[in-house]
Amino acid sequence: MTTNKQWQLAARPEGRLTDDDFTWTEETLPELQAGQLRLRNVYISMDPANRAWTNSADTYLPAVQIGDVMRATTIGIVEESKNERFKVGDALLGMGGWQEYLITDGRGFQKVPSLAGLPLTAHFGLLGHIGMTAYFGLLDIGAPKEGETLVVSAAAGAVGSIVGQIGKIKGCHVVGIAGTDEKCAWLTDELGFDAAINYKTENVYKALKKHCPNGIDIYFENVGGAMLDMVLAQVNDFARIPVCGMISQYNVKEPYGVKALPVIISRRVKMQGFIVLDYFSRVQEAYAELIPWALSGQLQYRVHVEEGLERAPEVLNMLFDGGNQGKLILKVGDE
Amino acid sequence: MTTNKQWQLAARPEGRLTDDDFTWTEETLPELQAGQLRLRNVYISMDPANRAWTNSADTYLPAVQIGDVMRATTIGIVEESKNERFKVGDALLGMGGWQEYLITDGRGFQKVPSLAGLPLTAHFGLLGHIGMTAYFGLLDIGAPKEGETLVVSAAAGAVGSIVGQIGKIKGCHVVGIAGTDEKCAWLTDELGFDAAINYKTENVYKALKKHCPNGIDIYFENVGGAMLDMVLAQVNDFARIPVCGMISQYNVKEPYGVKALPVIISRRVKMQGFIVLDYFSRVQEAYAELIPWALSGQLQYRVHVEEGLERAPEVLNMLFDGGNQGKLILKVGDE
Repeated sequence: MTTNKQWQLAARPEGRLTDDDFTWTEETLPELQAGQLRLRNVYISMDPANRAWTNSADTYLPAVQIGDVMRATTIGIVEESKNERFKVGDALLGMGGWQEYLITDGRGFQKVPSLAGLPLTAHFGLLGHIGMTAYFGLLDIGAPKEGETLVVSAAAGAVGSIVGQIGKIKGCHVVGIAGTDEKCAWLTDELGFDAAINYKTENVYKALKKHCPNGIDIYFENVGGAMLDMVLAQVNDFARIPVCGMISQYNVKEPYGVKALPVIISRRVKMQGFIVLDYFSRVQEAYAELIPWALSGQLQYRVHVEEGLERAPEVLNMLFDGGNQGKLILKVGDE
Repeated sequence: MTTNKQWQLAARPEGRLTDDDFTWTEETLPELQAGQLRLRNVYISMDPANRAWTNSADTYLPAVQIGDVMRATTIGIVEESKNERFKVGDALLGMGGWQEYLITDGRGFQKVPSLAGLPLTAHFGLLGHIGMTAYFGLLDIGAPKEGETLVVSAAAGAVGSIVGQIGKIKGCHVVGIAGTDEKCAWLTDELGFDAAINYKTENVYKALKKHCPNGIDIYFENVGGAMLDMVLAQVNDFARIPVCGMISQYNVKEPYGVKALPVIISRRVKMQGFIVLDYFSRVQEAYAELIPWALSGQLQYRVHVEEGLERAPEVLNMLFDGGNQGKLILKVGDE
């Protein structure tokens, strides 16, 4: 008999999460039925979307209901299986939730390969939706060519930091924009960016002029608003702008009006929004490059691992307090 | 001996052109030297850019100098030739200027084919840069598919009217936006648009909602500003926006700030500016479709022909007074 511990949603949180918003419960798991398997969670991905799922309004997924186990993406190991698709020892990625164990028929779960030299947690980031976002946004829409200038906003973020490194691998002059001197130093000193601009202390327009003496060929857009106007004023002919996010505009009452758009005609600029889900059918294409880059150390990816299922609510809060440095992961068991 | 009449620029015009801004001169043409040919102009294309060329500031071409013959695109017939590339009777398109004749070594001129059933003037429009702009902007960037909804702004303009008709040929539901009821009636009654919106008398946002019940898949952008915001609010997933012009923004002191850009992420919109010059190497591709469409009557193109070289300054003014209905052409001789 296996005992399972889990966090169930107890109330609709307001602002920061507290332990009172969840109920810590223990239950004895039943025997497996035909087609089922028992998964032991090892890693729980802590994502900003998790917080949105606790609200009463549905997002791109239905809201988590009061009394349900808190939803989260997890990686777990199959401990027992009466399911034909998965066998004992397989590592599975799926919506395993904030709990130690779960019994499932395996629908919605996928087996993740164990890659010598790469931690399982890479599947939450570099080989997960973050790596895919960076890879396809930059290569499919940005189409970088050797010697071109790439500017990345939110460059120290999970996606931005990978975008810039791929840009360097592809031979670009890479300039990142971030919000602290420490982040800027990380970009240039550890990730190999050619330059980094602290948008909180520098005049971004002038700094771009200085660090992009040949103009801007690709702008990987995570921020939007005034930053976009400053970049558009300096783009080269046939510039590409993959639009991954416009985070400056999500929580403002009065949206910023972008004024420099006519330049996209004279400069023949392509500006294109994308969502990583649209590229999931091409995931093997990305693996074929991302895995060797990661194994060779050309591509660095920062994870921030906390431990202990019982700390889940407080750990999720770190995302909103700026307490994490890299992709936030909660470890709840041994691999 | 051939006598040539021409208009030379006499002064930098202010506002509307007057005959005093030009000097009417007659000269006797010299004998041809080896490599030269004598061209007799038949049609002069009257374009908004002509007016800009009379100013002292250079544009994408150098300013016309005082004392020079006024520059303009023309179609002429070779009357005598000591040039290997061109023979007597050839129709040539090039910068022939506001004059009856010119002697040239042929550089910068191209032979235009005489197409049974199509007037020579088609080379100024449908088969010239206007037709190419509509063709490549819509097909190369807009990539229309049967059953999709296409919205065209400045739809009664030279480019817009062709865009909408090609959209119909490609099986789209086509909605045009124009500035008078008469233009709207022309779009729906004569050109086969499914609907037309008078932006001066209708609420464009609501009218688009009504006439685009399945949302907007392609927006051929000629206008920019608030119109773009209204369209972005109604685009479908994977919409394409070929950006040909943003004429609402060219003469304003305070540019309009476009606020709806974040939607290009969630809707995965592609917005791409272009200039027809970039497509000139692919002109045969366009001819292969445009010529049969024009010959079969599927594609209508309106020209407005005035006559008489001596009227050139007053005829050019028509462009700015709104006096022309269709591409403005000055006929100065017989074909």
